[in-house]
Amino acid sequence: MTAPLQSLLSPRSIAVIGASDNIHKIGGRPIHYMKTHGYAGTLYPVNPQRDTIQGLRAYPTLDALPQVPELAIIIVAGEAAVQAVRDCARLGVAAAIVIASGFGEAGAEGRRQQDEMVRAARAGGLRLVGPNSQGLANFGSGAIASFSTMFIEVPPHDGPVAVVSQSGGVAAMVYGLLRGQGIGVRHMHATGNQADVTVSELALAVAHDPGVRLVLLYLESLTDPEVLAEAARVARARNVPVVAVKAGRSQDGQRAAASHTGAIANEDRAVDAFLARHGIWRVDDAHALARCAPMYLRGWDAAGRRLVVVSNSGASCVMAADAAQTFGLTLAPLSETTRAALAERLPGFATTTNPVDVTAALLSNSALFGEVLPVVARDPAADLFLLDIPVSGMGYDVPRFARDAAAFADTSGKPIAVAAWQQPVAEAFREAGVPTYANGTEALSAFSQLVSHQQRLRQIAAEGEPPVPARPAPPVAAAGVTLSEAASLARLVAAGMPVVEHYVCHDVDAAVAAWQRIGAPVAVKASSPQVPHKSEHGLVALHCNDPEAVASAFAAQTRTLRAMGATCEGVVVARMSRGQRECMIGAHWDPVFGAVLVIGDGGKYVEVLRDTAVLLAPCGEAEVERALAGLRIAPLLRGVRNEPAVDIAALCRLAVQVGELVHEASGSIHSIDLNPVMASPDGVVVVDALLEVAATPHQGTADRIAADSA
Amino acid sequence: MTAPLQSLLSPRSIAVIGASDNIHKIGGRPIHYMKTHGYAGTLYPVNPQRDTIQGLRAYPTLDALPQVPELAIIIVAGEAAVQAVRDCARLGVAAAIVIASGFGEAGAEGRRQQDEMVRAARAGGLRLVGPNSQGLANFGSGAIASFSTMFIEVPPHDGPVAVVSQSGGVAAMVYGLLRGQGIGVRHMHATGNQADVTVSELALAVAHDPGVRLVLLYLESLTDPEVLAEAARVARARNVPVVAVKAGRSQDGQRAAASHTGAIANEDRAVDAFLARHGIWRVDDAHALARCAPMYLRGWDAAGRRLVVVSNSGASCVMAADAAQTFGLTLAPLSETTRAALAERLPGFATTTNPVDVTAALLSNSALFGEVLPVVARDPAADLFLLDIPVSGMGYDVPRFARDAAAFADTSGKPIAVAAWQQPVAEAFREAGVPTYANGTEALSAFSQLVSHQQRLRQIAAEGEPPVPARPAPPVAAAGVTLSEAASLARLVAAGMPVVEHYVCHDVDAAVAAWQRIGAPVAVKASSPQVPHKSEHGLVALHCNDPEAVASAFAAQTRTLRAMGATCEGVVVARMSRGQRECMIGAHWDPVFGAVLVIGDGGKYVEVLRDTAVLLAPCGEAEVERALAGLRIAPLLRGVRNEPAVDIAALCRLAVQVGELVHEASGSIHSIDLNPVMASPDGVVVVDALLEVAATPHQGTADRIAADSA
Repeated sequence: MTAPLQSLLSPRSIAVIGASDNIHKIGGRPIHYMKTHGYAGTLYPVNPQRDTIQGLRAYPTLDALPQVPELAIIIVAGEAAVQAVRDCARLGVAAAIVIASGFGEAGAEGRRQQDEMVRAARAGGLRLVGPNSQGLANFGSGAIASFSTMFIEVPPHDGPVAVVSQSGGVAAMVYGLLRGQGIGVRHMHATGNQADVTVSELALAVAHDPGVRLVLLYLESLTDPEVLAEAARVARARNVPVVAVKAGRSQDGQRAAASHTGAIANEDRAVDAFLARHGIWRVDDAHALARCAPMYLRGWDAAGRRLVVVSNSGASCVMAADAAQTFGLTLAPLSETTRAALAERLPGFATTTNPVDVTAALLSNSALFGEVLPVVARDPAADLFLLDIPVSGMGYDVPRFARDAAAFADTSGKPIAVAAWQQPVAEAFREAGVPTYANGTEALSAFSQLVSHQQRLRQIAAEGEPPVPARPAPPVAAAGVTLSEAASLARLVAAGMPVVEHYVCHDVDAAVAAWQRIGAPVAVKASSPQVPHKSEHGLVALHCNDPEAVASAFAAQTRTLRAMGATCEGVVVARMSRGQRECMIGAHWDPVFGAVLVIGDGGKYVEVLRDTAVLLAPCGEAEVERALAGLRIAPLLRGVRNEPAVDIAALCRLAVQVGELVHEASGSIHSIDLNPVMASPDGVVVVDALLEVAATPHQGTADRIAADSA
Repeated sequence: MTAPLQSLLSPRSIAVIGASDNIHKIGGRPIHYMKTHGYAGTLYPVNPQRDTIQGLRAYPTLDALPQVPELAIIIVAGEAAVQAVRDCARLGVAAAIVIASGFGEAGAEGRRQQDEMVRAARAGGLRLVGPNSQGLANFGSGAIASFSTMFIEVPPHDGPVAVVSQSGGVAAMVYGLLRGQGIGVRHMHATGNQADVTVSELALAVAHDPGVRLVLLYLESLTDPEVLAEAARVARARNVPVVAVKAGRSQDGQRAAASHTGAIANEDRAVDAFLARHGIWRVDDAHALARCAPMYLRGWDAAGRRLVVVSNSGASCVMAADAAQTFGLTLAPLSETTRAALAERLPGFATTTNPVDVTAALLSNSALFGEVLPVVARDPAADLFLLDIPVSGMGYDVPRFARDAAAFADTSGKPIAVAAWQQPVAEAFREAGVPTYANGTEALSAFSQLVSHQQRLRQIAAEGEPPVPARPAPPVAAAGVTLSEAASLARLVAAGMPVVEHYVCHDVDAAVAAWQRIGAPVAVKASSPQVPHKSEHGLVALHCNDPEAVASAFAAQTRTLRAMGATCEGVVVARMSRGQRECMIGAHWDPVFGAVLVIGDGGKYVEVLRDTAVLLAPCGEAEVERALAGLRIAPLLRGVRNEPAVDIAALCRLAVQVGELVHEASGSIHSIDLNPVMASPDGVVVVDALLEVAATPHQGTADRIAADSA
């Protein structure tokens, strides 16, 4: 497959509408950059005021060009930008980038203009970047359709990283951080309001670029997860890690994103689940986006989380050991062989356990790091190496330390990082190609990310491609209605789920008969679609164990419903069920991600103690089991203090079923809430259920039939 | 009171034993530093090989000096160092610093030598720093008794910060970070093995220095909390914040610390409780130690956690809003007046809500920050200000931004920080005296620390001085013995605690009579000091509600105990008690901190779900209540979903009592474990208790009497 969006990334010709002779103006910068960085295609400055611009022949209008350009950079603003898009579409220009802001992010009139641009573009088969975009820059092709000043502040260098961002600011920040570490950047793209082309689409395009070995993304809203999933798939196939910031985690953040790029809020835990499923590592800010880059680019395969720390500072050893615990790394105990070999090389007062404190003896023997590293690398228990050098200066042969560390990295193939507290030390290591951090905590944070990310990618490789979301239907317009408990349980029964033994009874005799059939204490619960929270209205009677109790509960509850003016869809008489643990399973329909599954600790305090995991559905039992394993209650499910394990497999099966039900309903089920689901060693059973479905003309009747069929 | 340890910090004369003419050697550097940095006292190089050293007259031995020096720096190693300490003590030198390593941290022989140094010093009234110390440096007095190379790498400048550290490495790291921010450092002390003088003592000394306005500590073990508490008190009285790293949080970290400075492990959650109680802010590493310094040194009073973000990057606004949530800051909604005033000053497409995105309009109007800041500062809802400038460069008048921000800080008195992603921008702000961070997350982390720390200090000021630990007795040597449940409950009853109604019965008739007196279902539990975990051995029968059940439980349990060969101290017949929530209260004796109190969620899963808080005892009910409020179950205690609140005051009272009991026992009670403590709206009641006490000759008898008296 040809990589998409090549008209944006490697166009054969580019028109700059609103070109300037001044290289410091927005209309002048892209032309200047392209002339400087070897753009090989044809450049057409468009400006009615001048004959030449920056030494190039200028044209008064787009129509006056000798050929239709493949790409147009539209610098002009407001209505002139809209007209330029119309002109491009009319002439058959393949792609255009609108730089100006003041459209979709800025009120009704701006939104109208933006919609008009999109309409004109779609009509003419024109792909549109922006508006409110800083532009795209590809240092591979030299197509620098961007006005970023960062290329003046920090000289560009073509390299293996692609940065694709909704925000020009973030693109520039990440570019600056990477270049500061001596890393080359090939792509630096900013999509702004994403009226048409999205970060996902550009991510897919750059993932195809054979020169790209790392993709870094910044998103404020995600509307096309299926495209991002495809980008992740292409990247995984090429062994290219993808790391993303999805901002707007908080309510305030979502509000700020709406006024920044007109972003639509995403459900944040669903975003988490989506990115994890597709092997995209999520981080929180632009700094974190760049943090792990030097490690990824080394192409290391981290075998595990066992860390060896080597330092000339004992305190750094202590703090690194503490930080290792924070990041879930373990300090590998060294073998006797390793310790003996270390003892030969280190002075008596140095430590031969891990962390290895070589002490200030490094001052008198500059070869110490070079001697110690290969010894510990041979230890089978060592996966990761941190060299922490907080103390240095005169007398320390830093260039040699850096050479030794680089040689170690090259020959061992095992990940190594340096924590260098002083600038000159950091620079020596960076130049030698060793990932270098300002302190141990930063380095271990990067290690942890590297290992966890690779572990997730290996999981995907082992389990097969995760399901790519079908483009979900547009947000369900129909209002939701709550089903009665009877109707809700009936739906579950129909879907083959394990539901507590119950009968929907329409008179007292039926209720008493139900109690007799169950042959044990029962719960009596009046069922009405208008009263989803029954217990608050006295509509739940527990432990009824004689005909009088059942009959009086029936009478009282139906009376209450009548007094409330609520429909009664029968009274549910159900077996009293006790499990070892009350769990909850929920699912709902998200207009972007489709079916979203929630599973976790249940019972009446579910919203307060909030111990749940979120997954996208459909999903497999293995995925659910992994999610359960991350809960606080995980040990309780596995059994503690002589208790047996609950039937985790059955719990996972039920969760998968619930996810599928909502997935297949494709928006006609808004939400399912099962709580409690009683989990026992011999199975799981749903005790209480609440469904919300899209209101349809036939809904009332259909549900009544479902209710009666239980 | 005179500040302590002045012989170490401002000695009138200093001998350097093992002095060198070479300023790059350890024996040469302190002399060089003192000559350079204006030490006004008398310096005596001691070296038998030379007549002069660095232009000063040298002496062959300590005895040859014209006067007894106030301080001796002992550069010589091994046995020579021990002898030098003896000589100093014999002559009446006031204090000595031993630089050499290879003592207490390095095996039995080293420990013996270190003990000998301490013995000699104590005998002669000599205070000893080290061994294994980098030395002490006081740029206020010019007494630079330190061999740190950092003073060559990074030129010193006297200033308001004191760094006191067990590790010379950390002292140097923090010094480097502070100086890199343009902050002056007065004290940089490293105590090494702390055979005598501790970080706590030096913290107390520098807290008295009128030139010091911030104290930063690094500890690997804490053995004298009462001294550190006094240092904290002195610092609080002078409005000097104290921030500390206490390393060895993890097991691996404690092991590393033991081989680094011979550190003894502290119970980490007790360390947390101790530092919080005394208003010392705890951070995790050396970087974090320096992070908040620029804010502390401005002397700001942060009124609250309401943040205003101003940026020229919309994405930075979004990420800052997200990060604010992470750090528990809120984005203050701006008043209509403020928004109207902003709208006058900002272009149409900028945002006048918080975060305030001034957009790239900053390029055309360099006055924007200066105009916007005073407007938002007048808003009553604004406590903290973050200026985030990720995008800058040519065209941006950065010096003006920095001047405007500095002027704002000076006139408003409200905390402001800058996130500057590019080095030149950072430098401009730093020079203007505005706290400057590499990114928004770092800045907000510092803000959060500033506000939380000040809030804690205000709490202390309002509630009165926290109790200073009496130097606890040395670790209790006596082995611990477990009391039977009967004996444990009896102790609680004697202490006036609310214990479940129960009778200790020695025959079946007594047990049945007890059931009759209680008049409700009872629990029957055989009580033996040898079987603390009764239920695992079938020694607990619940819900007994007739004479037969009580009698058969009694018979079965006493039979079981006999079969196990365990003593029976009676069978407890207790009312079955159900509370709204099962809580736990525990306390134990820590050899460093004394009585340590644990309170939290109880029940059988207490160790798995682990929702507890740790406090030092004795403590007040307000402290306990604050700790409870931080638990996950806090909302359940306050009542959710129509449940009333439990009697939190009673729970706090009981916790205070338990803490006092262990405190007053001064080590003779090893631990108390009350679980469950049933908490209800109408009070709390202890249902199960386990005490471990120091074994004493009379213990057996005493407990039997206590058991019978219930």
